Amino acid sequence: MGAFGAGSSVEGNFSAPHSGITIEFTHMDKILAFHPDDLDVVVQPGVNLVNLNNEIKDSGLLLPLDPSPTAMIGGMVSTNCSGTNAMRYGNMKDWAINLTVVLADGRVVKTRRRPRKTSAGYNLTGFFVGAEGTLGLVTEITLKLAPIPQDTSVAIVSFPRVRAAITAASRIIRSGIQLAAFELMDDVQMQVVNRHGSAAVKIRKWEEEPTLFMKFSGTTDAIKSDIKRVQELIKNEKPGPLHFAKPKLEELDLWAARKEALFTMVSTRKEGNVLWSTDVAVPLSRLAVIIGENISKDECSKLGIFGTVTGHVGDTAMFYDPHNAEQKAAVKKVVDDMMHRALEMDGTVSGEHAIGIGKKDCLVEELGQGTIDFMKTLKRAADPKHAALWLLNPGKVFDLPHST
Amino acid sequence: MGAFGAGSSVEGNFSAPHSGITIEFTHMDKILAFHPDDLDVVVQPGVNLVNLNNEIKDSGLLLPLDPSPTAMIGGMVSTNCSGTNAMRYGNMKDWAINLTVVLADGRVVKTRRRPRKTSAGYNLTGFFVGAEGTLGLVTEITLKLAPIPQDTSVAIVSFPRVRAAITAASRIIRSGIQLAAFELMDDVQMQVVNRHGSAAVKIRKWEEEPTLFMKFSGTTDAIKSDIKRVQELIKNEKPGPLHFAKPKLEELDLWAARKEALFTMVSTRKEGNVLWSTDVAVPLSRLAVIIGENISKDECSKLGIFGTVTGHVGDTAMFYDPHNAEQKAAVKKVVDDMMHRALEMDGTVSGEHAIGIGKKDCLVEELGQGTIDFMKTLKRAADPKHAALWLLNPGKVFDLPHST
Repeated sequence: MGAFGAGSSVEGNFSAPHSGITIEFTHMDKILAFHPDDLDVVVQPGVNLVNLNNEIKDSGLLLPLDPSPTAMIGGMVSTNCSGTNAMRYGNMKDWAINLTVVLADGRVVKTRRRPRKTSAGYNLTGFFVGAEGTLGLVTEITLKLAPIPQDTSVAIVSFPRVRAAITAASRIIRSGIQLAAFELMDDVQMQVVNRHGSAAVKIRKWEEEPTLFMKFSGTTDAIKSDIKRVQELIKNEKPGPLHFAKPKLEELDLWAARKEALFTMVSTRKEGNVLWSTDVAVPLSRLAVIIGENISKDECSKLGIFGTVTGHVGDTAMFYDPHNAEQKAAVKKVVDDMMHRALEMDGTVSGEHAIGIGKKDCLVEELGQGTIDFMKTLKRAADPKHAALWLLNPGKVFDLPHST
Repeated sequence: MGAFGAGSSVEGNFSAPHSGITIEFTHMDKILAFHPDDLDVVVQPGVNLVNLNNEIKDSGLLLPLDPSPTAMIGGMVSTNCSGTNAMRYGNMKDWAINLTVVLADGRVVKTRRRPRKTSAGYNLTGFFVGAEGTLGLVTEITLKLAPIPQDTSVAIVSFPRVRAAITAASRIIRSGIQLAAFELMDDVQMQVVNRHGSAAVKIRKWEEEPTLFMKFSGTTDAIKSDIKRVQELIKNEKPGPLHFAKPKLEELDLWAARKEALFTMVSTRKEGNVLWSTDVAVPLSRLAVIIGENISKDECSKLGIFGTVTGHVGDTAMFYDPHNAEQKAAVKKVVDDMMHRALEMDGTVSGEHAIGIGKKDCLVEELGQGTIDFMKTLKRAADPKHAALWLLNPGKVFDLPHST
């Protein structure tokens, strides 16, 4: 649902002039129907993911995507959201069964019915997911659910260099072991955990080295067997010892440390500094190269920029003083360079945050004018009032017609 | 790729009159690029799936979809194909990374680049997959690949009644055990295996009862643990003994027996009889009901129709004499009733075979006129020459404009 961001909602009444129609806005945060025997749930876009999973947890089911805990289903649909579990569970387009959508002309349509697979007509669900609300206004979502795994185990392991960590990661991916989640944190980020992590995380001082976070899930026996194989696969990359979060509480805290790393950095940033983060993604074999190149630490520290790399793609976060023109220009250059390098590697400028306003220019470079023109053809078909302005989330993904 | 069915290809030359352009047709059966380190491969639509997996098998990778062995990638893209491995591996929309597409106006576009996930612009890949060639002509496909599992194990188990088999199946699905494949064969189909199966399958006489075929995959240890849990989960449904295919050859043969059940039935049908098969799909909890209801065996045998139910959805196959009006009408009624019942259960008339010509009427009943109108809006945008005829696979999915 594009008109809502991940954290906003609306409420109130609206009377359409001369129409006699009153439209009532609510938070749209209701779970409308839960079908545990079909492994699906029908929700409104304002439902928060964490709340949803809490509501249904007694059924043994969950929506296994794992973005920021503030995320709402509507925003997740709008951006084709993924998060730390993407490796095993993919992204939102894999979990939306059907959508109810208000079209530009006011008609309300449902993209499909509720079976878990279908080949009946065009894949409208996939058409609206990730469209950032520019093709229709999503008002209801039927979501596929997954069984909560019998057991999980979180392990972390450090490596002397980023390249070694990524070689190890590639080998694990190639082996077919299905980690629930798989994340990389660099030395800077591990420093943040050591200095500002919660008590449970600070039970010891962590190596301030590139570190892989792995979440195993499945049956208890299967996890044991997976761990044995992972140790075998990474042993040539000079890993530190594999540390397991023993009590379940520590497991949650360790994972929270990774998930909230960005918040931790925001909360501990220098007064007045702001964040610029980006999320390029490249084919697997180029990951070591782009992560190795993406931030010149020397250059950052010379300019007083605090930069780090994290995550499942090529997430990069940098903090800088917005009133310092030199810093701002330097950060912009780092981000621009990184996006161009990603494109040279047949990658994307946005692995999961979507285009919005900030990345519209890169989209042409990434996809080519022909592809963009065809996307615009579809946009015009879905939102035909284009004499001056579009109706549906105008200005996102593409510039307004009158400005092109 | 819509213009090609799963089993056809074209070759030759075509000179566009007055244009000076000669277009060369080939089988379009080339593997264009293989990137084992990125776990992807770029192919033309005429590549046969079995050939592809043979070509790349030394890399330890495969495209894990498993339809009929005659399937070509283009046809699989066109119908959003799945097959026996759908439970674990989903369908074609989950494996197509990008497509190169010739649009109606002759422009050639690429839907996206090669990273494994992206939120950059509209999901054009998902738009063309399953569109049966009516939105564009797919000429190149980049496919995601999966690691070949370390080990597999095939087990079969029979139940006294279809309902018990489906209750057992639902319980396994709810447990989160990730079977690679999971199929149901009814008593009639098991008779066919006993009478006409290959030598390896006929090592013993199988119970002619509703039977679940399960394919476990993963590490050897994980499979052991999964099997233990499955036995626990199904024990209340009065299952027969779990039979494992011991030598790997028997495993392949057993699976082939399931996969080729339809071919076996075709080859052993009564002289002159023809096949009518359909593939409805319903939400999980309704599966027992629709399968229990979908063929009245008594009625079939009274009329001399040979009917059976098989597969991962609600695949039904019936053989009848096309010159016998009573039989033909009865078969049509069974199929129509089944489709209507599936729709009443919030299901679909096509789980994976797509709409083509035969199911166009049901599409309106399934999705509603508003949804169909919006699909047609997109069709007109993608294929705007609609004064008389469309250019792109005209008459499939939707009637031609002049006939509506």
